[in-house]
Amino acid sequence: MSRPSTYTTTVELQDIDMTRRTSVAAFIGILLNIAGEDATKRGFGIDAITQENHTWVLSRFAVELSELPALNDTFDITTWIAAYNRLLSTRLFSIASSGGQSIGEAVSQWCMMDIESRHAVDLTPLHEAYSEHIYPDDKVSVSLSRRLPSLEATQERIYRVEYSDVDFNCHLNSLRYIDLMLNMLPVDVLTESRPMRIELQFIHECYLEEELRVRCELRGDIAAFEILKGEDVPAVRCVIEWR
Amino acid sequence: MSRPSTYTTTVELQDIDMTRRTSVAAFIGILLNIAGEDATKRGFGIDAITQENHTWVLSRFAVELSELPALNDTFDITTWIAAYNRLLSTRLFSIASSGGQSIGEAVSQWCMMDIESRHAVDLTPLHEAYSEHIYPDDKVSVSLSRRLPSLEATQERIYRVEYSDVDFNCHLNSLRYIDLMLNMLPVDVLTESRPMRIELQFIHECYLEEELRVRCELRGDIAAFEILKGEDVPAVRCVIEWR
Repeated sequence: MSRPSTYTTTVELQDIDMTRRTSVAAFIGILLNIAGEDATKRGFGIDAITQENHTWVLSRFAVELSELPALNDTFDITTWIAAYNRLLSTRLFSIASSGGQSIGEAVSQWCMMDIESRHAVDLTPLHEAYSEHIYPDDKVSVSLSRRLPSLEATQERIYRVEYSDVDFNCHLNSLRYIDLMLNMLPVDVLTESRPMRIELQFIHECYLEEELRVRCELRGDIAAFEILKGEDVPAVRCVIEWR
Repeated sequence: MSRPSTYTTTVELQDIDMTRRTSVAAFIGILLNIAGEDATKRGFGIDAITQENHTWVLSRFAVELSELPALNDTFDITTWIAAYNRLLSTRLFSIASSGGQSIGEAVSQWCMMDIESRHAVDLTPLHEAYSEHIYPDDKVSVSLSRRLPSLEATQERIYRVEYSDVDFNCHLNSLRYIDLMLNMLPVDVLTESRPMRIELQFIHECYLEEELRVRCELRGDIAAFEILKGEDVPAVRCVIEWR
């Protein structure tokens, strides 16, 4: 049985917004980068699996945070794979200030995708290489919703996916989905420093030059978002709750 | 007298586009990050000068490249400050493949800005700390134009600056200017692998929620761009020449 790994990171200038705290997208980017670094260290990072024409794709993600860290704050991210099945690998995170106090937890589910066919790869044959990296402790309190609901949009915009939005597979980059959705909110809502929960579900991939509808419903302390392909095919849903 | 520093870097997945080479913006981002790292190492990085309410702002930049490096390519960037005057510090770059062959050169001019007043800071009082870091060899062949001309736009779009576009000062991020301009080009032009020269002039800063006009003129092997604030105040100009 494997042990979780802890990565220490410091908030840099490129991570912060005008409040001198990390933006939500930059904070999620830090967690996703560390997921990538941990996978690489254990031998199944994107670099290794692209040699077999596979890639990791984020499917679901939720994080609960007491605060967004500020410039020069150092914090520790402990991460481990808690489980996997045929289709999904579940990676957990616990986040602590340099003083050791918990500031948040996160859960993510990933599927392995064949780059050509864009179909999910069965993870079962990886059993031998993968199982030794499982730490079957799922004791984080953050959990994933079964399904984020559709919404009654109070705002909507049309967005055409551009060259700078896509990755090497011509697919819209995960962090750009977050940017597109959060840019719909008023800046004073985005920059509030309150405990929050953010959940994301990636349902269908979006491509270069595709026309998307980005929709937002802001009601009290909850903001719900969806990105639709064409008229009604959901690509991504997101809910943010401030507490 | 100081010596140039050399930084070795490897092209990673997040740097490449669908051609598996770095995008132009990612390549320029790598050079600007190394400029920042070198300034920090020498004691006048953004982290240090923000404590005095100052920041470095890129004013002019030109790079000439025989090719954009590909995924996993390792290359060496040698950088040094060749000169400075009251208003501008000139930093040069030479870029070589891991085999030692030159693949490009770049020149950049920076001013130091007061964060509150947004006026340029006189660099003369820094003489004592700064002069020992000058390596007065300006023998790179790439040079800056005196002034990039206005253009006869063949395409134009209106863009409103969004939350995810700005840095901690609420100013449009340098790399986002490049994205906004290059997104105007057809993807097959952007992904051509040919020797190229790119020049940028940053004239006025752009702010959160400001409405910009992004204009492009593509004629043969030359693409010229400008971003205007309101009707006619130039914020940025850029010219790309493929050879």
